[in-house]
Amino acid sequence: MKVENFSGVWAPICTPFTKGEVDIGKLEHNLELYSKTKLRGYFVLGSNGEACMLNEEEKKKVLRTALRRKVRNQLLMAGCSHESLRGTIALIKLASDEGADIASIMTPHYFKKAMTDDALVYFFQAVADNSSLPVVLYNAPGFAAGVALSVKAVARLSEHPNIIGMKDSAPTGPNIFLSAINRKKLAILAGSANFFLSSLVMGAVGGVLSTANFLPQACCHLYEIFQQGELEKARRLQQALMRVNREVSGGYGVAGVKVAMDFTGFSAGDPRLPLLPLSPTERESVGLALEEFIEEYPQFRNHLISKP
Amino acid sequence: MKVENFSGVWAPICTPFTKGEVDIGKLEHNLELYSKTKLRGYFVLGSNGEACMLNEEEKKKVLRTALRRKVRNQLLMAGCSHESLRGTIALIKLASDEGADIASIMTPHYFKKAMTDDALVYFFQAVADNSSLPVVLYNAPGFAAGVALSVKAVARLSEHPNIIGMKDSAPTGPNIFLSAINRKKLAILAGSANFFLSSLVMGAVGGVLSTANFLPQACCHLYEIFQQGELEKARRLQQALMRVNREVSGGYGVAGVKVAMDFTGFSAGDPRLPLLPLSPTERESVGLALEEFIEEYPQFRNHLISKP
Amino acid sequence: MKVENFSGVWAPICTPFTKGEVDIGKLEHNLELYSKTKLRGYFVLGSNGEACMLNEEEKKKVLRTALRRKVRNQLLMAGCSHESLRGTIALIKLASDEGADIASIMTPHYFKKAMTDDALVYFFQAVADNSSLPVVLYNAPGFAAGVALSVKAVARLSEHPNIIGMKDSAPTGPNIFLSAINRKKLAILAGSANFFLSSLVMGAVGGVLSTANFLPQACCHLYEIFQQGELEKARRLQQALMRVNREVSGGYGVAGVKVAMDFTGFSAGDPRLPLLPLSPTERESVGLALEEFIEEYPQFRNHLISKP
Amino acid sequence: MKVENFSGVWAPICTPFTKGEVDIGKLEHNLELYSKTKLRGYFVLGSNGEACMLNEEEKKKVLRTALRRKVRNQLLMAGCSHESLRGTIALIKLASDEGADIASIMTPHYFKKAMTDDALVYFFQAVADNSSLPVVLYNAPGFAAGVALSVKAVARLSEHPNIIGMKDSAPTGPNIFLSAINRKKLAILAGSANFFLSSLVMGAVGGVLSTANFLPQACCHLYEIFQQGELEKARRLQQALMRVNREVSGGYGVAGVKVAMDFTGFSAGDPRLPLLPLSPTERESVGLALEEFIEEYPQFRNHLISKP
Repeated sequence: MKVENFSGVWAPICTPFTKGEVDIGKLEHNLELYSKTKLRGYFVLGSNGEACMLNEEEKKKVLRTALRRKVRNQLLMAGCSHESLRGTIALIKLASDEGADIASIMTPHYFKKAMTDDALVYFFQAVADNSSLPVVLYNAPGFAAGVALSVKAVARLSEHPNIIGMKDSAPTGPNIFLSAINRKKLAILAGSANFFLSSLVMGAVGGVLSTANFLPQACCHLYEIFQQGELEKARRLQQALMRVNREVSGGYGVAGVKVAMDFTGFSAGDPRLPLLPLSPTERESVGLALEEFIEEYPQFRNHLISKP
Repeated sequence: MKVENFSGVWAPICTPFTKGEVDIGKLEHNLELYSKTKLRGYFVLGSNGEACMLNEEEKKKVLRTALRRKVRNQLLMAGCSHESLRGTIALIKLASDEGADIASIMTPHYFKKAMTDDALVYFFQAVADNSSLPVVLYNAPGFAAGVALSVKAVARLSEHPNIIGMKDSAPTGPNIFLSAINRKKLAILAGSANFFLSSLVMGAVGGVLSTANFLPQACCHLYEIFQQGELEKARRLQQALMRVNREVSGGYGVAGVKVAMDFTGFSAGDPRLPLLPLSPTERESVGLALEEFIEEYPQFRNHLISKP
Repeated sequence: MKVENFSGVWAPICTPFTKGEVDIGKLEHNLELYSKTKLRGYFVLGSNGEACMLNEEEKKKVLRTALRRKVRNQLLMAGCSHESLRGTIALIKLASDEGADIASIMTPHYFKKAMTDDALVYFFQAVADNSSLPVVLYNAPGFAAGVALSVKAVARLSEHPNIIGMKDSAPTGPNIFLSAINRKKLAILAGSANFFLSSLVMGAVGGVLSTANFLPQACCHLYEIFQQGELEKARRLQQALMRVNREVSGGYGVAGVKVAMDFTGFSAGDPRLPLLPLSPTERESVGLALEEFIEEYPQFRNHLISKP
Repeated sequence: MKVENFSGVWAPICTPFTKGEVDIGKLEHNLELYSKTKLRGYFVLGSNGEACMLNEEEKKKVLRTALRRKVRNQLLMAGCSHESLRGTIALIKLASDEGADIASIMTPHYFKKAMTDDALVYFFQAVADNSSLPVVLYNAPGFAAGVALSVKAVARLSEHPNIIGMKDSAPTGPNIFLSAINRKKLAILAGSANFFLSSLVMGAVGGVLSTANFLPQACCHLYEIFQQGELEKARRLQQALMRVNREVSGGYGVAGVKVAMDFTGFSAGDPRLPLLPLSPTERESVGLALEEFIEEYPQFRNHLISKP
């Protein structure tokens, strides 16, 4: 696995539920649509996948479905985060056995006061030593009780031969890391559409964008026009995506992403409790944000968008 | 289960490990010592028990051991916290099947921005509706990414017939809740030695104190002298316990508690990774804090304390 | 100035404004009412006094009025907080020249990342070295951008002969400090009604309570019955005061305290901008909280309370 | 004043002290050097200027010196932030009387819980209504106790004819605002070198960069090559500046910036207490970061850099 292999847009796919149960049919429908796009790959069993709501059996089913339905050149990154080293290694083994390509590991955080740089470096090194899959660090203080990887910790970890990437969802974005690491050794992925373009400008190779769950083509197009040097056009599209993202993922999280998927031809159902589904008013605001986007970019009205 | 049943000191027991494996022999040794004290009961599979590091099989073993070794009138409160409603209910069923008396449920927090008062109230009501065990709310923002129960949420939840208690480990302590709820309907337990006495003064019925893992008799004595109206003596003992607690649990968390147990005749081993064991210097500071305490309160030198 | 001199309840008095201007007449009216209570003294030019909204001339006027109207045995503590050492010393000189008894100094916090323990200890020692007034440390992370004095810093500072007290408004209350300092050298004052009784139990000598601005007699009574060992009665009153406080100061800050003063016969006007006055609905909720309190404690209906 | 007038790099100049007193000679020396660069203007009396440490007389002296020494086409933005509306207006009058071009106003934050969107919008509108100078909003949660302007508040305020710019020092940078406002009505300035280039890419017109206090030419060069479309070169320089910035301003704040100025031929002295000067080891790390930068970019060794 090389740094170049990460280039492009990844969708951190949602787990659809029907009446509370994992709905493989819906998942296959979504993957069918995704497979016609230029998505580089899928991030499965992450926050948008409500991994913390799934039991082991369900995790396997989701992984298998994604592996079965991905197009040949697409890659599968599996979320294998667990509070303990043992649990992490066990999840990596499960993902590896199923055939995943990469393991993404978030900072442990339950004992947040103890998660010093030394503890985190020791943890990730031990994970990488014991992983049959290449490892991507996942920095997401918003989901990790505020625990964040420091620049120094990432610089140290980037020397490990089995640590090949980092996904950064901190609100500050990955730019500070991009200035401190060898970009030939560590692929940096933007973890939010909010800073996708600015991360690309600074040297990120791609992004894992919840926005790609419901506007995959727009996200892939942004990547392409940046590659082509169309900076002015890229800025305009980036800003339009930020406006959608602020309303959808920023405003409502996974529940909002699932509603946006409903509006754009995908099928995701409600989140699992304790996440509450959106109220009618909230659904409407998601729909309006999408309508505004499509009005500005009618070329992305590829899937029939139901009226909010 | 009545509010009165909670009265007294509970130990949130540690899970001992030897070479990384759960060590049932050590756990039995600790429970043997605890059973000779006036501890009201045990809180099993909580933060001090490193529950997030244990798999299901290990959880069962720990629960069974505690149930087998507790003295007749002692109660067993089992930590059944999980991010999802389903997972929580599954853990409660497991604990109930094994014979636990009470289920303690922490606020879910992975999707912290979505954990509004409404979402938390809905969640806990659904838990209580589906639990065969009486439910204790666990408010611990320090372990829950800052998610905290509001006074209004607790007041609403206290009306549920199957919600009978609340353990509060927020640094502010439970006093604000004690002024807002019907203390006949909801037993309030202090979740830290730091505010044990002040919580008792304000109407808490007891405490779940990590300090009781290594100084159980001192904690029980504090409870007793408060009951007897010996406020001046209680204050002095409370302050001495705070000084120990600041060094041990405050300074080093579970890893510190385990070292303090080693110094006081219990046996807890190292924590599991990513928690690191204490350095020699850190161990020494724990030992010194205990020595100072025992110098002031030689009557609690019941177990041979090894020299730091 | 001795530790004993601090014993009792202090009112952190508000600065009344009429059409935006300091209204000395209203201030005199309030002080006239306060002078008939058992208030130990006044804390002038603090947060409740909107000191950060006043210019130097206005500060002098407020100080002079308070000094002129206090009863002989009452003490005047002046807020002399400023971000710089120079500014702090200048304000202390001003307060001293006017005749204040004590200077209260908050942690500087504009450059919060630089406010290490060492910087804070150095700062407070320099303040105390250069102050003609005895100094009270003011720990109020809620008003100081989260900057808080550590236990170790307070322990070091308590050795300075000119540092004689500490007012603690951190939500955790002063108990952790009370276990770590020599209470003969440093008077500890609770900085909120939320933890007044629990602080007294742990060794605080009194409190500076915004609640005393509008319910001075109830606060003084709580202090008295605690002194008399009436713990059960004290708890009931403490809880009733907490309920009021949660609505008034907790809910609306200074603007709420000013409205509560209007309801209890004092006169405080609106706060200065950017603080907004309460809406009619908010005023009503303050009035209802007071009505509930007076219903439970009719003996404190001493001032005519206007209907909300 | 038009949006275009803001284009380029601004230095938020430091106030030099000698033995604690404002040193106008040193300030003139620095301004002399700055005047030979392409700096667009100066931001005077901000955080780097230690404005909160200066009294009114000193503020006037600094303002006058900057006005006297600036080159004709340079602009002077004066920090006029104060907790109260009255104090803010008074400071704007002072700056206007002296001849400043623009007033920069930070969010008030002492009463942070009361600083709702409505309160902030009301405050800034009242400031703009009463200001004879055009107003720049200053969003700097790190210096404002975490108070931050929301996207909606900025969008509303950008409609005011006398609010013409916004300086954003939040760690997330101004990109979210750039997607939400009319960039013809509101000039956005990056408030940190950490996100200077990425802000320019997204539509910011310039930056107010503490790094420009000690590396003004490098910062101006970055702006120029971005304007010329040299994105790859710009990225490289941006990353080198981030590495310096992380060590200097990120690590040590104003005190670090002052040391870096000493190393680069400027003269800034120590900060005022409670800010402590850097230790020898800390000075050395600042010097090393600068050496690394100059090694990579020898063309910016314009001022003799003394050896660390």
